[in-house]
Amino acid sequence: MDQETVAYASRLQAPDTLKEAMIYSLEAGGKRIRPLLLFATLHAFGREQAAGLATACALEMIHTYSLIHDDLPSMDNDDLRRGKPTNHKVFGEAMAILAGDGLLTYAFQVIAEDAHPLVTARMKLRLLSELAKAAGPEGMVAGQVADMEGERRQLSLAELEAVHVRKTGRLLEFAVLAGAILAEASDEQTEKLLIFARNLGLAFQIRDDILDVEGTEEEIGKPVGSDISNEKSTYVSLLGLEESKAVLQQLTAQAKEAVASLGLQDEFLLAICDVVANRKS
Amino acid sequence: MDQETVAYASRLQAPDTLKEAMIYSLEAGGKRIRPLLLFATLHAFGREQAAGLATACALEMIHTYSLIHDDLPSMDNDDLRRGKPTNHKVFGEAMAILAGDGLLTYAFQVIAEDAHPLVTARMKLRLLSELAKAAGPEGMVAGQVADMEGERRQLSLAELEAVHVRKTGRLLEFAVLAGAILAEASDEQTEKLLIFARNLGLAFQIRDDILDVEGTEEEIGKPVGSDISNEKSTYVSLLGLEESKAVLQQLTAQAKEAVASLGLQDEFLLAICDVVANRKS
Repeated sequence: MDQETVAYASRLQAPDTLKEAMIYSLEAGGKRIRPLLLFATLHAFGREQAAGLATACALEMIHTYSLIHDDLPSMDNDDLRRGKPTNHKVFGEAMAILAGDGLLTYAFQVIAEDAHPLVTARMKLRLLSELAKAAGPEGMVAGQVADMEGERRQLSLAELEAVHVRKTGRLLEFAVLAGAILAEASDEQTEKLLIFARNLGLAFQIRDDILDVEGTEEEIGKPVGSDISNEKSTYVSLLGLEESKAVLQQLTAQAKEAVASLGLQDEFLLAICDVVANRKS
Repeated sequence: MDQETVAYASRLQAPDTLKEAMIYSLEAGGKRIRPLLLFATLHAFGREQAAGLATACALEMIHTYSLIHDDLPSMDNDDLRRGKPTNHKVFGEAMAILAGDGLLTYAFQVIAEDAHPLVTARMKLRLLSELAKAAGPEGMVAGQVADMEGERRQLSLAELEAVHVRKTGRLLEFAVLAGAILAEASDEQTEKLLIFARNLGLAFQIRDDILDVEGTEEEIGKPVGSDISNEKSTYVSLLGLEESKAVLQQLTAQAKEAVASLGLQDEFLLAICDVVANRKS
């Protein structure tokens, strides 16, 4: 999966520095939770993973672009990401912006040109439209704006949730939705899968907030307690650590329940719930 | 056309500041040369303009995003664009980056969701793929990188041309190609139209360089002679003013010739050549 995404970028007839900057961040590792969700959804329907490969690569490109832009000095101004210097620290700010722009644009090309025989024109258009909605000004970009605007004040739980649903939730939901589109899931099945994804997305974020308090710098690849020192509203700051853990368990259970009710080959989807709830990084 | 593009952005369920920032730059005026090219190409084939409306709006969104990002402090650091403060001067750097990201992403959604009955799924996928190629890491983004990297040294004429072909040429070519796709032009017709577009794109850039020397600040909306004071390689600095004007005439003639050989309803395409060659801003 990592290799496939990098292979797409390596193939480009683009200036060397630009390709280097794009590939640097694509190779920075990470949990690959979005591609995993897509493949697990295809598996649930007994469909082959290969049909989701191009979309999974596009999804990682979009996720990676969002991290590069979020880390910029004028945004979160982060020097480290997963223990490595952030893109602009290595390539400079202008190149980091362009590497992000390049990854974002290329992602749409990769889906539009997907040549897998099981991926129809209609599926591709739906994938492109849903990906743009999840990543664009009604989705992830809106979430980043809301996050920035909420930084200087205490958020309510509902406001915090609204930020996360768009900033990280929509792209996680797209991963599952993409699997459903490619597997030709019924509307009813898709609805249940989206309930699964929404609960999982929030669980993912709560686990992040818990790790900021309980993790080690080595494990999470950035200083522990950075949310506290930045006075950021988090689930832990609003609910306390114990209650956050209880909500995490509850969301994980709801996610599993939504999936289990479908009677599919759901073992990978269920396993991802446990990975998200218990991850150390 | 301007109203249509702004209407698309106004419809978004997005944070107010983000929408404001996107619309601010969409409304900043400009020559709308790309939509004009698209509509003129449709007209040449006797097709209705309405079939190109969504694509034309998407094209202006991509063009506008590129201006917002190019003007950023870490890129060209421009305070004025068409006589108005640049996006980051009004909304701050972070919001300008996000407004650009939002416009870029939304452009793909607008084409993917185009509901005009004459626009088939196959056309939409080709439009999406070609737009991403023209705007992405092999096209406009590559051109911006090459432009940045060439800033601190004297370029040869071939290098300068290579920068412009990608930085502005590819998106102008896409405008014509989009018209050809939507009008179901033959491969041979499309080839001729692309020769037209390539010559026109270079003519456009030479006219820009001439205006930087001969224009007035009032007309061009930025200080005259900024290329000279920035020691930028331009057609005028490499060829001199008279030779630049001669090349401009030659390119315009070649563009017209390529189109005229097709025997279409080409009056608007020919008129655009004259507008580009003689424009004052």
